[in-house]
Amino acid sequence: MKYPNSINDLIDCFMAYPGVGRKTAERYALFTVNRLDEDRTNNFSKALTRVKQEIVKCSVCGQLTDQKVCDICSNEYRDKTKIIVVEQAKDVISIEKSKNYNGLYHVLHGAISPLNGIGVKDINLSSLLERLKDETVKEVILATNANFEGETTALYIKSLLENIDILVTRIAYGIPVGGNLDYADELTLNKAIEGRTKI
Amino acid sequence: MKYPNSINDLIDCFMAYPGVGRKTAERYALFTVNRLDEDRTNNFSKALTRVKQEIVKCSVCGQLTDQKVCDICSNEYRDKTKIIVVEQAKDVISIEKSKNYNGLYHVLHGAISPLNGIGVKDINLSSLLERLKDETVKEVILATNANFEGETTALYIKSLLENIDILVTRIAYGIPVGGNLDYADELTLNKAIEGRTKI
Repeated sequence: MKYPNSINDLIDCFMAYPGVGRKTAERYALFTVNRLDEDRTNNFSKALTRVKQEIVKCSVCGQLTDQKVCDICSNEYRDKTKIIVVEQAKDVISIEKSKNYNGLYHVLHGAISPLNGIGVKDINLSSLLERLKDETVKEVILATNANFEGETTALYIKSLLENIDILVTRIAYGIPVGGNLDYADELTLNKAIEGRTKI
Repeated sequence: MKYPNSINDLIDCFMAYPGVGRKTAERYALFTVNRLDEDRTNNFSKALTRVKQEIVKCSVCGQLTDQKVCDICSNEYRDKTKIIVVEQAKDVISIEKSKNYNGLYHVLHGAISPLNGIGVKDINLSSLLERLKDETVKEVILATNANFEGETTALYIKSLLENIDILVTRIAYGIPVGGNLDYADELTLNKAIEGRTKI
């Protein structure tokens, strides 16, 4: 005997997620059947389609948003002279949580990784160069992850900006080497931003 | 800055699942936004509502099914004289995978657990007694889990059936096949020795 089709389909859907194997997907699917009431299941179902309909990338910085321009880019009180460059949308949330930075962001949605076939054109980089053209921005702070791909990306961006009169810095290794930015605690993130160095 | 509402809602939905904390839910939600295309997200969304609309408990054994009576109960080639009693729907699938049992099942959807406020009326037990009334069933095999709740439930069912002329058995405890003796805990070893059989 197998599960009925609709349960199998749901198991397959959960298995598409990172780190979810068959056992876990089975557990999630059976939890849906046994424990989630109809209202909550419908909410979940709607949340999935809604996220796809509403969420776009900010036309300025690339951050995920439900508007054309995200809250940070459209906020007139933010310091427009600084841009922190991060790999992922969630990195912006992590830095914002540390409540110490009032500048702008640029989300690459990835990092250069020749081994995985991700080149310079596959990340959100050209729009960063566009943003620097009007000379409002005085400093670009590179906050890519402290791993091989992140370092490569930082060095590449540094080389791109070499002929532009702009300060390029890298956040300090306050974050553990090899670690992911979004697992760093707020204090570490603050230190890392304060201790940024010219590269 | 926080995530847009629709992302936050989706994070909350994922957090309802067992063992899913905020970080994991965030990861799943962002994976939905960044990596799942619209078709797959819609499929997922539909699979969720479909599972709620279609899946019911088999009116005979309680197993999850999309028919009134499940495939096993309605299969005329199954041995109707034996019923294995299990706690969860997935236990049926596990036993079926072993392809050695051709009888029927009864799914309790839980186990007696006074500490968690789950009493004898909260599990699918009364319908088991109904099934035994026509005297087709000759043996009830208790396959509840080998923990406190499972044992309590097995003993309770045994006591319920004491006055009925029916064989009540418990699946064997012992060393897992292929398992090393020195990795087995003491309780399991004791049970294995107690339950030794003549060869």
